[in-house]
Order: sequence, then structure tokens, then C-alpha cells
Amino acid sequence: MSLEEVRIVDLTRVISGPFCTQQLADLGADVIKIEGPQGDPLRQQGSKIDGMSAYFASFNRNKRSVVLDLRSEDGMSTVKQLIAAADVLVDNFKPGTMDAMGLSDASLEALNPRLIACHISGFGQTGPYAARPSFDFVAQAMSGFMWTNGKPDDPPLRSGIPISDLVAGLYAALACAAALAVPKPLRNFKSIDIAMTDSMISLLAYMATEVFATGRTLPRVGNDHPLVAPYGLFETSDGHIAIAVSNDGIVDRLFTLLDCRHLFEDSRFATNDARVQHRAEIREEVQSRLITDTTATWLVRLNNAGIPAGPVLDVVSALTDPQTRHRDMVLETPAPNGSSMPILGFPIKQSVEAPTLRRTAPELGQHTDEILRELTEAERR
Amino acid sequence: MSLEEVRIVDLTRVISGPFCTQQLADLGADVIKIEGPQGDPLRQQGSKIDGMSAYFASFNRNKRSVVLDLRSEDGMSTVKQLIAAADVLVDNFKPGTMDAMGLSDASLEALNPRLIACHISGFGQTGPYAARPSFDFVAQAMSGFMWTNGKPDDPPLRSGIPISDLVAGLYAALACAAALAVPKPLRNFKSIDIAMTDSMISLLAYMATEVFATGRTLPRVGNDHPLVAPYGLFETSDGHIAIAVSNDGIVDRLFTLLDCRHLFEDSRFATNDARVQHRAEIREEVQSRLITDTTATWLVRLNNAGIPAGPVLDVVSALTDPQTRHRDMVLETPAPNGSSMPILGFPIKQSVEAPTLRRTAPELGQHTDEILRELTEAERR
Repeated sequence: MSLEEVRIVDLTRVISGPFCTQQLADLGADVIKIEGPQGDPLRQQGSKIDGMSAYFASFNRNKRSVVLDLRSEDGMSTVKQLIAAADVLVDNFKPGTMDAMGLSDASLEALNPRLIACHISGFGQTGPYAARPSFDFVAQAMSGFMWTNGKPDDPPLRSGIPISDLVAGLYAALACAAALAVPKPLRNFKSIDIAMTDSMISLLAYMATEVFATGRTLPRVGNDHPLVAPYGLFETSDGHIAIAVSNDGIVDRLFTLLDCRHLFEDSRFATNDARVQHRAEIREEVQSRLITDTTATWLVRLNNAGIPAGPVLDVVSALTDPQTRHRDMVLETPAPNGSSMPILGFPIKQSVEAPTLRRTAPELGQHTDEILRELTEAERR
Repeated sequence: MSLEEVRIVDLTRVISGPFCTQQLADLGADVIKIEGPQGDPLRQQGSKIDGMSAYFASFNRNKRSVVLDLRSEDGMSTVKQLIAAADVLVDNFKPGTMDAMGLSDASLEALNPRLIACHISGFGQTGPYAARPSFDFVAQAMSGFMWTNGKPDDPPLRSGIPISDLVAGLYAALACAAALAVPKPLRNFKSIDIAMTDSMISLLAYMATEVFATGRTLPRVGNDHPLVAPYGLFETSDGHIAIAVSNDGIVDRLFTLLDCRHLFEDSRFATNDARVQHRAEIREEVQSRLITDTTATWLVRLNNAGIPAGPVLDVVSALTDPQTRHRDMVLETPAPNGSSMPILGFPIKQSVEAPTLRRTAPELGQHTDEILRELTEAERR
């Protein structure tokens, strides 16, 4: 495993932080999840399988759980011993909380001068909003992301998943992994500061860069693409199909398939710029042809012609799709009572040192004794 | 810089691949972007500043550009020399294309037995759909992600940014960084296989895990949260405000602030489960109070009470927001003609070895001579 020798003290809870440390755990790190006596609130969220939250199970595999009361002297002394022996510390407390607990960056550096300390927060550790409470939804709203979703007259729409939490978690994991690429003897104390809002802004892509170039935002175009046409969600005789026509070559293939190459002679459709200007008309031309047959039939025809296209799958269909199954994106794992519990799979596939399930998500405090014993043994040596 | 000694041969174009290699370049790697004589198609997408696509500029900083014709013997021989001397190779060709070019994993391993070869694609290198053409929009549709966005009767909606490309790029960068944490002498050839659809499925969070636990999908709830209430986008006297009430403590603070703690005595609102069941009614109670004042006033009151809340910013407002500016999420860089060109900033902030702008995005082939000279010099040694 790539991160086999790496030890991580994990003070995170709910999503952004646990998702970060799960990436590192999946890649081989020994992640010690510190939980208060009540446990990570995610243990109580969503439906359970044999007493274990399915949500918690999918985002906390490959970790060990230790219960410590960080408000007690004993608990704080133990966590400091763990930090002194760790490579990485991750937290997703509101800025200021670590300081108040006596775990400021200066204290952390004194405890462990080679530590990588990664802080995940809503707005970041600095700036006018640093002290504000935040949450995934707020980052979706304030990053511009929500505004980009939907048609011109629709209200702004959040994505149905906690995308800001997850993307911030990915950036945090990336920052930690890159920091671990520096050989340990050469490492200096490093404080990493990942903000959910920054993370979402970094993904604004052409929505941001058109502002840079023109001072104006691109129109909100729903399922269409603001820079390319035809592109979008079309109706078929029995449902929908998503078609992504990203360049002139693919438009040519699409018009050939739909037997409408004569449209290129129409000045409204001759170039991409013209088609974007006449978005509604070109959409109507394509739509009127696609409505004549089923999604499944069009899918085969379009893909055979090299045109990216797909059905819109609901979550159940996506999770049971043959490709999802083939890619092991759903893993059957043992449930606490010995039956089976599905969790999400590993998106990082590799030929060697691939992520594997070494441990299912731990019960609260499952490894407290084990880790305290390891600490005592390490002291004796 | 964390990845200072790392050399990357970058065969990617458009978004997912260039976003991956840009992360690694920002963290210090020497990224050699190989472009055909026509250049990366992204150079022609979106509006330009002094002849440079603003979109290309934001996703290709810190890289060097080399023009090679990979269909010529000379070009292929040069790229093989570069691969032999590299730590990492990244491509985002359709599966099969690398093999057809003579750059199969077996050939790559023969060229460089310590190489990290990272392949990014729509559906992955394996499985029933591996050979299908794909694109961000198709991954959004087939992963279940589009289905989660919107209200029950809305059609499925893609996000306004190429989220599947970007998330796949982040996973690819993470996989490469973790692989680089293995000391070079211990590295074996590694083939990494990142799929856009897998990447999006891994983010389905509670939308997936509720299926695992109950066999049913959660309802599509637009801007509300399927597991928590009240939560969502509310109207104020002059606009909207996003409020994320994630636990009972925050509900208590919200009801106190809105002077409606008596609602706890109503059995419909006493617990989170009850409030989720009576989503429309609790929304109406909260909405009727928020409509009485402005977004700005509520924002101060809510944040002072420790309740996560924020305005919905359009992209221009998000990019010019004081926090965005403070966090340097927009960087002013020199444009080709000497004027100024904004690009997106670095979401990874750290106290040492922080990402910096070492180079603006290169002109096509700007470093061809430089890199060919380096190759010749390396041979002489």
C-alpha cells in the first residue's frame, strides 16, 4: 500500500474530514479516529443496518476508533502522545477550536516538529468570514456553484449530494499525500488550510474564466452547455437521453446519424458559435428526430457512431448498473451481526498497492484498548 | 515545494487530465505538457485575453508546453525518451488509444520500470462500457448524480460546471501523489485507472447509503436536505438566504432567534424525524418569519447565533467577494501582451511549500526547444 507506513490522528467528524481521512486510509494509512464518548454524529444519521449507520459505514472503513474525552486531562494527554508519534493530524473543527483546546499550530509543532497538520473548514482559517459557522450548503451558495445550476428563470439549486464537503475532503487528502511525498527526515511542520468555499470556487471552470475574459457571467442554461450546441438532455419515445456534442467532428457524426447534414447549409447551424446563438432552434431540430425511437436504441446508435451519450440513471439504477458492478463501486462487507452490508467502492483503481478493504467501519471505541496498549508498549521501548 | 523533484509527462487535453496535472504542477512537479501541432483543443474554447483562452490559462499554469507529432517516428521517439526519464505519465485518451499508439502498459513498463502511469477515462479501462465514448455530461447522467438534483417533478439536472471531469482529475492527482509517497527506489510500475463515473458514484453519500440500508432512494428535495429539516433556501424581503440547520442544537438556536420555541411543543416539529415528515409545514413556519427582513440583516443575526447561513452569490459576486479576495482565489497574472489576466487561485493553502505561480499557462510549444535541449544534455551525461 502506498501509504502503509503512515500514521494519521483523525479528529474529524461528519463528512469533509472523514472523507479526507478515508481516502488516506484506503491508500494504506493507519488512521486513528478519535471520537468523544457520544461518537461521531454521523453514527446517528440515516438508516442503519444491524445498528450501524450505512452512511457512517461507507465513509469510515479502514479506520480504527478510539474514544477519548478531549475535555479531560487524561484524554488530552493521550491525544498529545498520539500526535507526537503521528505523521498527519486532520481536523475539521471551526477555526479557533483547536487553539481553544490547546492544540494551536504552535503547540502541535512543539509536540511534533515533522507533523503535517491539515485543517478543513467552511471559509478557511483566515479572512473576514473565518469565524462564521459554515456547512456544505452555505459553501454551495456562496461559491457561485448553486447559481450555475438550472435555467435562467429557475431559483439557484444546490446539488443533491454534499459536494462542497466531499471536494474539500479530496483537496485535503491530496495536500496530505503530496506532503507525505517529502521524505520524513526532510519534513518541516506544515499547516494545511483547506476551505470548502475555496474548493468549490476552484471548480468553477469556464463559468469563472468567462468572467475573467469578458466581465460577464455565461447564461444559466440548465442541461445545455453554455459554450457548445447541440448538447443536453433530449426526450426519446420512452424517456431521456443525455448527449454531449463537444466539437465539430462530433456534430458532423450526429447530423450524419440523424440524416440531417443539410443543416450545415443553414447559416444558423453552420458553426458552433452560430448554433450556440440559435440554441433553441438546433435543439428543436435534434429533438424532433430523437423523439422517434427509444433511449436504448438511440444509445446503441449514438455510441456506435462515437457520440458520447447516456441514459439518466436514478441512484438505484446507477448502483446496480453492470458497469458499476464490474468496477466494484459497491462492495459487500460483513455487517456487525454477520450478515452483509453494502458500502461504496474505491474510485482509485491501480495495478499494484490498490486500495482494499482491510477493516469495516469501526464500532465506537472498538480499538481504544488496542491503541492505548500500543502507546504503552511504544513508551517501554 | 512538496513535489519539487517530480517530473511528469502530460499527454492530457481539455479538462479532467489537465486539471489533474495542474494540481501536481501547483504542488511543485515539473509538468511537461505534450501537445500536437494543433494544440490542446481547450486553447480554442471560451473567450480570449490577448489571444490566450482564459479557460486554458486557469487550468494549465505551472506547466511547460512541448509540441510533438506523436504520429511521427521522431515525435514518438522523443516522447519515449521523456517517459523513460519521468516519474509520472498521465493521459486521458479513450481506453485503447494508448495501446494503439504503442504505449500500452507493458511498453510503458519496459521503458520505465518505476513509472506511475495514470489513465483517466469516462467509464474506466475495464468493464462492459469501457470502449464507449464518454464526456462529463454522460458521467453526470449515468452516475445517479443528475437524478439527485432538483425537486420530485423536475427533470434531472446537470451541474453548471464539468464536475465529473474535475472530480476525476482530483482523484487522479491524489492517486499520483500517494504513489509518489513511496520512495523512488522502492517503486514498481503502477497503472492507475480513474473513471469519471466511478468518481461521481463515490460522492453519492447518503443518496447511495440510504439505498444500501433501505433499498429505496431518498426523495429528491431540491434545496432542502432529505434527512434534516428545516434546511434550504428561504425568501427574504429582498432576495434569498441559504440556511443549513444540521442538528437539534442549531434548530433550538434558530427557533430562539425567530422567537418561535413554542413550535417544539407541536408534535409535528418536536423531533428531526417529525420535522422531515412535515417538511412543508416547518418550512412555512420559518419562511413566514424570514420574509420580514433583508438577507443582509438575517445573515448577521443568524451567524451571530451560530447558525450556518449565507447568501446565494452569482459567479461575479462569488469571484469578487471579500473572502474570495482575501483567500487569493483569483490571481492576477501577466497576460501575453504584458497586461493583466486573472486566473483561479490555489485551493491548497499551506504554511510551507505552498503552491505558487511559477509560470503562467504556456503558449503552444513555448518550451519545445528547451526540453529537447535538456534531453540532449541528459544523454551526453
